[in-house]
Amino acid sequence: MKNCIIASTSTVHGSEPLAYLQEALLDLYSDVEEILFIPYARPGGISHDEYTLGINNIFKKINKKIVSIHMFSDPIEALKKAKGIYTGGGNTFLLVDQLYRNGIIESLKELINSGVPYLGTSAGSNICGLNMKTTNDMPIVYPPNFKTLGIVPFNINPHYLDPDPTSTHKGETRETRIKEFHNLNSQPVVGLREGSWLRVYKDDIVLRGNLTARIFEKNKAPYELQTNSSLSELN
Amino acid sequence: MKNCIIASTSTVHGSEPLAYLQEALLDLYSDVEEILFIPYARPGGISHDEYTLGINNIFKKINKKIVSIHMFSDPIEALKKAKGIYTGGGNTFLLVDQLYRNGIIESLKELINSGVPYLGTSAGSNICGLNMKTTNDMPIVYPPNFKTLGIVPFNINPHYLDPDPTSTHKGETRETRIKEFHNLNSQPVVGLREGSWLRVYKDDIVLRGNLTARIFEKNKAPYELQTNSSLSELN
Repeated sequence: MKNCIIASTSTVHGSEPLAYLQEALLDLYSDVEEILFIPYARPGGISHDEYTLGINNIFKKINKKIVSIHMFSDPIEALKKAKGIYTGGGNTFLLVDQLYRNGIIESLKELINSGVPYLGTSAGSNICGLNMKTTNDMPIVYPPNFKTLGIVPFNINPHYLDPDPTSTHKGETRETRIKEFHNLNSQPVVGLREGSWLRVYKDDIVLRGNLTARIFEKNKAPYELQTNSSLSELN
Repeated sequence: MKNCIIASTSTVHGSEPLAYLQEALLDLYSDVEEILFIPYARPGGISHDEYTLGINNIFKKINKKIVSIHMFSDPIEALKKAKGIYTGGGNTFLLVDQLYRNGIIESLKELINSGVPYLGTSAGSNICGLNMKTTNDMPIVYPPNFKTLGIVPFNINPHYLDPDPTSTHKGETRETRIKEFHNLNSQPVVGLREGSWLRVYKDDIVLRGNLTARIFEKNKAPYELQTNSSLSELN
């Protein structure tokens, strides 16, 4: 039993954070009043308190209360009591590092697999894959492991960007990077464009949003998956 | 005694690989006939043999011969005999992983610090910094450590890209990423644009090429460094 939204981004251009997901969140968190927020990914200038306050203001609009895991002395206890969970974006290396260092990675995995409604955006979505080896983030800390939750049997590449045919820049395109990943790893990668999300419910995984997703499988040409299609067979 | 070129990229748009560095390479390798190539960074479709062959063709133009470290049964012996070294680009995680797993990171550091002429491009430049935490690459493998050679007392960000003011994409800009790095780390970062390189000679470090570099120091606004300026005091 799983009940998750795995979203490419919290915010799409020109709209408020999570606004594009509002209906989907009302469905995900229909039986939940209070959501446990995991702010660990955020390395930026704002504190966990400020980050949580901002998230709380967003969730007020759908009448949900936010409490943050960093406010609890025992994070595992906080997790076990949670009726809904949201892991926000930032830096995936930092998020994974903190999940390991706070000893909560196994508990988080168990809870999501037991059906506690879970929203991940960006870094919070990356950790739903088998490992974090397809993050776009800068490795600003060295986590104890790259293995993540494996809520879905493939990897996520959030904020997926198509190659820019006019670019003169010699850095690798996203597609090249994922091809290089497949020279060393075998699991599929779902390139989720901003505005797309995966709706995981029980054993179903369905692409939602207005856009197609780009699917990368080892030894296969990448291809586009239409929205509202199933990914349940991808592994 | 150090004698290095630390270049943002091997290739600038519209020209042949290393062509823009030709004069600088003739100077760097003036007393060297044969250069030891380190191909470990390359995860792509081509083999180490093919990669080496391509590099050999490039160096033919300046009458240098290339031998690759992967051809030797004892890579440390190969390194110790080398009169000049070149580490090419690809994926920094893979390069660092291979340097550790082949047990050559310390030998490489010693040799460069003893004055063996060294060229790094892209990933091969990243490893000249204190650590690889400011690479742009995808973490397709988990290296035993992020610590690198520390040939210069700061970090490198190769292929440095300015923020695109017209972008609607919500992924972090390069500048944001480096700011986030500084929330957790203290060493300066040199954002080297494509076409720029650092010329390290004895204790001098000078920016070369036609462009300015962007310098990031913790708790300081980022600033531009003019070409031909010294970075010897940056640490």
